[in-house]
Amino acid sequence: MVIVMKANAADSHIRHVVSRIEAAGLSTCLSRGQGRILIGIVGDRRLIAALPVEVFPGVERVLPVTDSYKLASRQFRSEDTVIDTGGVEIGGGNLVVMAGPCAVESRAQLLEAAEIAREGGAQFLRGGAFKPRTSPYSFQGLERQGLEYLAEAREATGLKIVTEVVDVTSVAMVAEYADVLQIGARNMQNFRLLQAAGQAGKPVLLKRGIAATISEWLHAAEYILSEGNYKVALCERGIRTFEDYTRNTLDLSAVVAVKKLSHLPVIVDPSHGTGRRELVCPMAMAAVAAGADGLMVEMHPKPSEALSDGSQSLDPDQYRELMAAVSSLAAFLRQAM
Amino acid sequence: MVIVMKANAADSHIRHVVSRIEAAGLSTCLSRGQGRILIGIVGDRRLIAALPVEVFPGVERVLPVTDSYKLASRQFRSEDTVIDTGGVEIGGGNLVVMAGPCAVESRAQLLEAAEIAREGGAQFLRGGAFKPRTSPYSFQGLERQGLEYLAEAREATGLKIVTEVVDVTSVAMVAEYADVLQIGARNMQNFRLLQAAGQAGKPVLLKRGIAATISEWLHAAEYILSEGNYKVALCERGIRTFEDYTRNTLDLSAVVAVKKLSHLPVIVDPSHGTGRRELVCPMAMAAVAAGADGLMVEMHPKPSEALSDGSQSLDPDQYRELMAAVSSLAAFLRQAM
Amino acid sequence: MVIVMKANAADSHIRHVVSRIEAAGLSTCLSRGQGRILIGIVGDRRLIAALPVEVFPGVERVLPVTDSYKLASRQFRSEDTVIDTGGVEIGGGNLVVMAGPCAVESRAQLLEAAEIAREGGAQFLRGGAFKPRTSPYSFQGLERQGLEYLAEAREATGLKIVTEVVDVTSVAMVAEYADVLQIGARNMQNFRLLQAAGQAGKPVLLKRGIAATISEWLHAAEYILSEGNYKVALCERGIRTFEDYTRNTLDLSAVVAVKKLSHLPVIVDPSHGTGRRELVCPMAMAAVAAGADGLMVEMHPKPSEALSDGSQSLDPDQYRELMAAVSSLAAFLRQAM
Amino acid sequence: MVIVMKANAADSHIRHVVSRIEAAGLSTCLSRGQGRILIGIVGDRRLIAALPVEVFPGVERVLPVTDSYKLASRQFRSEDTVIDTGGVEIGGGNLVVMAGPCAVESRAQLLEAAEIAREGGAQFLRGGAFKPRTSPYSFQGLERQGLEYLAEAREATGLKIVTEVVDVTSVAMVAEYADVLQIGARNMQNFRLLQAAGQAGKPVLLKRGIAATISEWLHAAEYILSEGNYKVALCERGIRTFEDYTRNTLDLSAVVAVKKLSHLPVIVDPSHGTGRRELVCPMAMAAVAAGADGLMVEMHPKPSEALSDGSQSLDPDQYRELMAAVSSLAAFLRQAM
Repeated sequence: MVIVMKANAADSHIRHVVSRIEAAGLSTCLSRGQGRILIGIVGDRRLIAALPVEVFPGVERVLPVTDSYKLASRQFRSEDTVIDTGGVEIGGGNLVVMAGPCAVESRAQLLEAAEIAREGGAQFLRGGAFKPRTSPYSFQGLERQGLEYLAEAREATGLKIVTEVVDVTSVAMVAEYADVLQIGARNMQNFRLLQAAGQAGKPVLLKRGIAATISEWLHAAEYILSEGNYKVALCERGIRTFEDYTRNTLDLSAVVAVKKLSHLPVIVDPSHGTGRRELVCPMAMAAVAAGADGLMVEMHPKPSEALSDGSQSLDPDQYRELMAAVSSLAAFLRQAM
Repeated sequence: MVIVMKANAADSHIRHVVSRIEAAGLSTCLSRGQGRILIGIVGDRRLIAALPVEVFPGVERVLPVTDSYKLASRQFRSEDTVIDTGGVEIGGGNLVVMAGPCAVESRAQLLEAAEIAREGGAQFLRGGAFKPRTSPYSFQGLERQGLEYLAEAREATGLKIVTEVVDVTSVAMVAEYADVLQIGARNMQNFRLLQAAGQAGKPVLLKRGIAATISEWLHAAEYILSEGNYKVALCERGIRTFEDYTRNTLDLSAVVAVKKLSHLPVIVDPSHGTGRRELVCPMAMAAVAAGADGLMVEMHPKPSEALSDGSQSLDPDQYRELMAAVSSLAAFLRQAM
Repeated sequence: MVIVMKANAADSHIRHVVSRIEAAGLSTCLSRGQGRILIGIVGDRRLIAALPVEVFPGVERVLPVTDSYKLASRQFRSEDTVIDTGGVEIGGGNLVVMAGPCAVESRAQLLEAAEIAREGGAQFLRGGAFKPRTSPYSFQGLERQGLEYLAEAREATGLKIVTEVVDVTSVAMVAEYADVLQIGARNMQNFRLLQAAGQAGKPVLLKRGIAATISEWLHAAEYILSEGNYKVALCERGIRTFEDYTRNTLDLSAVVAVKKLSHLPVIVDPSHGTGRRELVCPMAMAAVAAGADGLMVEMHPKPSEALSDGSQSLDPDQYRELMAAVSSLAAFLRQAM
Repeated sequence: MVIVMKANAADSHIRHVVSRIEAAGLSTCLSRGQGRILIGIVGDRRLIAALPVEVFPGVERVLPVTDSYKLASRQFRSEDTVIDTGGVEIGGGNLVVMAGPCAVESRAQLLEAAEIAREGGAQFLRGGAFKPRTSPYSFQGLERQGLEYLAEAREATGLKIVTEVVDVTSVAMVAEYADVLQIGARNMQNFRLLQAAGQAGKPVLLKRGIAATISEWLHAAEYILSEGNYKVALCERGIRTFEDYTRNTLDLSAVVAVKKLSHLPVIVDPSHGTGRRELVCPMAMAAVAAGADGLMVEMHPKPSEALSDGSQSLDPDQYRELMAAVSSLAAFLRQAM
C-alpha cells in the first residue's frame, strides 16, 4: 500500500502517519516527488488492511498494491486445481458440460431433460429445486421433492447433479442429494452461506455476482476455501451493464483473467449471460476458445412450456447442435495447442 | 403485456399464441401495423407472468406493461406509510437521522458515539454487530456482545437502535435487541432473509443492492410486506457505476422516483453513497432537498482509529455541523412547502 | 507514479526500469515490502506520462498518483472562477438559470418560451439550433434560422443565449449569435471542437459525457483552457448506468467533487439528467442544496407539441413553480451558510 | 409503438390521444386489460417518432416496438455485406486482420511494424496519424507526415491502410492516403463526421462508442449509409462497465447480436477491448469462435518504447503466435461449419 500525502501536508502529519504505521508493527519507506510525499507500507497485509490510513491528517489518497485473497491466488498454488466430483473431473483440460432446465418442474420433465442431456454428452444435470426469484409471486421451486427427482435422474442416467443452495438452513439437505452445490449470483456475497457451503465439504460452483468485480469474486471464493474446502469452481454468468439488448453482458475477459490470477477452474453460463437462446451457441463457442473449463447451459424438453427462463433455454435439437459444435472445437483446441 | 410478432409470423403462429393465452384463462386483443401483429394480453398478472410467451413460434419480443409488486405500490396504498418504532416515527414529514459508527468496536467507543449522536440531535444509533466484509480476513463484528453494547447505549441515551441482520439464523437474536432490523445491500436479494425479517415483525430498513434497479428494490420490499409486515423503510446507499472517484454513485433521483411509485419512506445514506467524508454533508443536504425522509450517516468519535470505513466517517465536529445544516434546511422546507 | 514490480522481478529488470526512467530526465525512489519492489518516479508529469512503463520487463502494474490536468485544478487557481457573460455572471455565489425548449422549432414558439423564461426569472435562454440526434431521420434543427430567432429573443427579453455548437465548421457562426457556446455530452471528447470553442473566445458550457469520469471531464475542460480561454463552466447532465427508470443517473456527487477538484463553476441539468418531468423540480432543489452554481432546465410553452424531448420538458406552470422553489431555497442557503 | 394509459385516465384523455395520432395521419388500435387502456399506433415510423405522446394527458408510458434504423438492418438486406477495399474483402467468410502500432511514431518504426504485420499474415496495417487523447498534453500524432509514412508502408508491403479520421476538415486529407477510414469510439456520435465520412465514399470502420448501445451503434452506421455509402464495417472494442481489471469490457455478445440484426461485417479489437496484452490472444480466439469477420490488434516492434498504449501492444513474437493460432482456428471453423 502506498499513501499519497497532500501537496500541503505538514511535517507533523507525515511524522504522525509514520508513527501510527510503525506502532502497528509495520515499516515504511518515504519518497518525494511531484510536490508530494509518498509513504510505502511494508508488512503483513492483514495488519495493513486494518489501518484507517485514509483519515490520518494530511493524507490525500491511498493506493492499494495487492489484493488480500490468498488461498485463491496463483501465488499460493501455481498448478491448476482439478476437482473430483466422484468420477468426473472439473478443470485440468477437459471440457465439462452442465445441462438441464432452469427449474425442476415435474418428475416427467426432469427425467426427459436428463435423458436428452446424457445423450448429447453432458456430464452434469443442472436444475433448480430452490429458485430465488425477483418477485415473491413467481414460482419458487419444488424444494425437497425437486431434489428427489434430481437424485432419481442421476440413478437413471449416471449424470452428476449440480443444483443451487439458497440459504444456510437447507445446505445439509441439498448436500445430501447434490454432487456440486451451486451458489447463485444474488448470493455471491451472502458470506454465511459461503461459509456453510465450505463446511459442507462438497464441491461448490460459485457464480459471479451481477455487479461483482473479479477481485470481489475471488474474495468470495476465499470465504469457501478458508473453511478448508478447496473444491471450488467459478462460474461467469454475465454482469450488469447499460446494454439492454442482452439480459447481461457476458464477460469472457474475466474468464481469462481469473485463470491467470487464480488456480480455480472456470465454467461459463452463456444462457444467463445473454438471456437469448440464439446467442447461446456462438457464445459457448467463444467461451471454449477463450479457455473455459466448462459450460452450463439451460435446455428444456419443451421451452415453450417452461415455468421460468424459457426465452433463453435451448430446445433438444439446439442443445444437440451446441454439443456437437463445442465438442469438435474442444477436440481441435486440445490437439492444436 | 404486449407481444410483438415477427414481421414474417405465419397465421398459424398467431393462432397458436392466442390459443395458448386463452387456454390459460386470459384474453387477447390484436392490433396490426408497421408490418407487425401486436397481441395484448388481458387478465391476472400472475397468470401472465407464468406464460413463456417469448418462446412461442413467431414471437419477436414481449413488452411488459406493469410491474408485479403490489403491496409496495402507491396504487395499493395512496397515503405515505409512517412507521412507528416505539415512539419515533419514520416517514410522515419529519426528518429522522440515524448516526453512529460503521461497526460496534468496543463498549467505550459505542457509548461515546451514542452520546455524541444524541447531543447532535439524531433519533437513532446505528452500528453493526455483524459486519459482512469482502475479505474473510477483515474484522467481522462483535456479534452478541455488540448487540448488548447497543442495548446499553439505548438505555443510556434513549436513542433507538438500527443494526444489521446478516442471516436467517440470527434474526431472532438481533430482533431481541434492535428497534429496526437493517438488511444490507449485499443481502437485498437474499430472499430467505427478507422473509425471516418480515416474520420477525420488527420494522425493517431495506438497503438498495449495489446493482439493483428500482423495480428490483421494490420487489425485494414486497417479500417483506407479503409476510404481513408493513413497517418497511427503504435506504438509498449508492449504486455501482463506472465512476470511481466516489465509492458508489448516490442516486437521489431514485429517492424521488420511489416516493412516487411507492408509499414507503426512504432514507439516504450519503456515507456509503459517496465513500468520502468531504462529500457527506453536501449530499445530505441534497437528499433532504430531494425529499428524503431521513439520513443514515457514519460518525465515529475518532475516525482515524476506526476498524472499518474510517475514510467516510464524520468526526464529532463534522457531525454537529451536518446536524445543524440539515435541521435548518428541513425546517425551512417544512415551512416553505 | 509508483511502479509495482512483480514478485519475481530480477535485479536486472529493476536496474533497467530505473535506468530508463533516469534516461528520461526523471528521478526514482525505491522501496521494498510485501515481497515487492516499488519504484516511485519523481519529476515533470508530462515526461512521466510519455514513458511506457507498463511494458518494461518485470513490471506488474503502475499506480498513477496525480491527474495530468493543470489549468482546471484548484492547485492552479484556488479561488472560484466567475465568468462574465456580458453582464450576467456564472459562479461566485449567484444561482443562474438557463431555461427554454430543447430545440428552436419556430419563431413563435421561441419568442413565447423566451418571454415565459424571462418572467419566471431565468437569466439565460437555452434552445438548440443544431440538434445532434441518434437517428439520422429525426429533426436536426433549424440551423442559422434558429440562431436568428435566438438573437431576436435576446433583443426582446434581455436574456443571454446559450446554444449548442456541433462541429468545427459552424463554431464561428454560432459564436456570432450566442453568449455562451454549449458543447454537448456526445462531443465532450471531440477534441477538435473543444479547441475551436476555446479559440472562439466566448464562454463555453461543457456538458459531461454520458460515460465520462470526473477526471476525463476535467481533462476535456483542459483542452479549452489550454487555448487561453478561461471562461469555462461545466454541466452535469447524468451518466449512463444500469438503472433504466430514469433516462440517465444524475450524479450530484460529481458536482460537489468537481467543485473541490476545480475552480470552474458547475451547472446541473435535471431535465436530461432524469428524462422525467416529475423529477425535474425535486432534483433541481437537490442540485441547489448540493452547491450547484446554476440550473439548465427544459421548458416548452406546449410540451405536448414539442418536436423533441417533450417528456422531460416542463410546461410554463411547472417552470414557474420550479423557479419559485429554487429561488427561495437559494436565498435561504445564502443567508444560512 | 404502444401507449399505456394511466389506471385513472379519463375517457376524454383517451379520445384526445387518439385524435392527435389520427391527425398526424396514423391509425390506432385500442385494447383494454389489467385496468389499463393500451393504444397501439400504426403507420410510418418517422411520423410516429415525431409525436410527443409521452406528454399527452393521461399517458403513463410508451413502449417502442421497432428501432428506427433501416438501411443497416437485416430486413433491408438479408445477405451479408462484403466490402471490397481494393482487392481485399471484409466480410463474406474470410477473417481479415488489421495489425500495427497504436500511433505512427516515426518512419522507421512504421516500416518495421508493417513488415512484421505482413510477414505474420495481416491484410491491413493500422496506425494513427491523428490521435485523440484524453489529455491535451499527450502526444497527438504526426498528422500528414504520418499519413505519408502509411502510404509508403503500403507501397513497401502491399498491405491496405486503415487509419483514424478525427474531424470533418481532415476527412479529405485522410481519404487521400487511407484505404479504410476509421471512426474512433469517442466520435461514434459525432454525426457531422459520420456524414463527412459517408460522403467521402471510402470504406469506413465504425468503432462502437464506449457507452453506446447496440441500437445507437447501428443508428450511427445509418448516418453513414444514408449518405449512400454502403461500405461500412463495425468494430467492437469494449464498453465501459464497473469492472476495472480490464480497461474495457469486451462485449462479444454484441458481435453475435449485430450480425443477426444487421448485414454489416463486424471486426473485434481485443487490444483496446481488454487493455492487457496477456488477454489479447485468448480474446482474439474467442472473437473468431463467436463469428467475427476480422480482428484489429495493436502490435509494436518494441512495445516498451511505444508513445501510447504500450501496455496492450503485442510484441512481434506474440503477434506471430496470435496469427498462427487464429488462422488455424479460422480454418478449422470454415471446414467444420
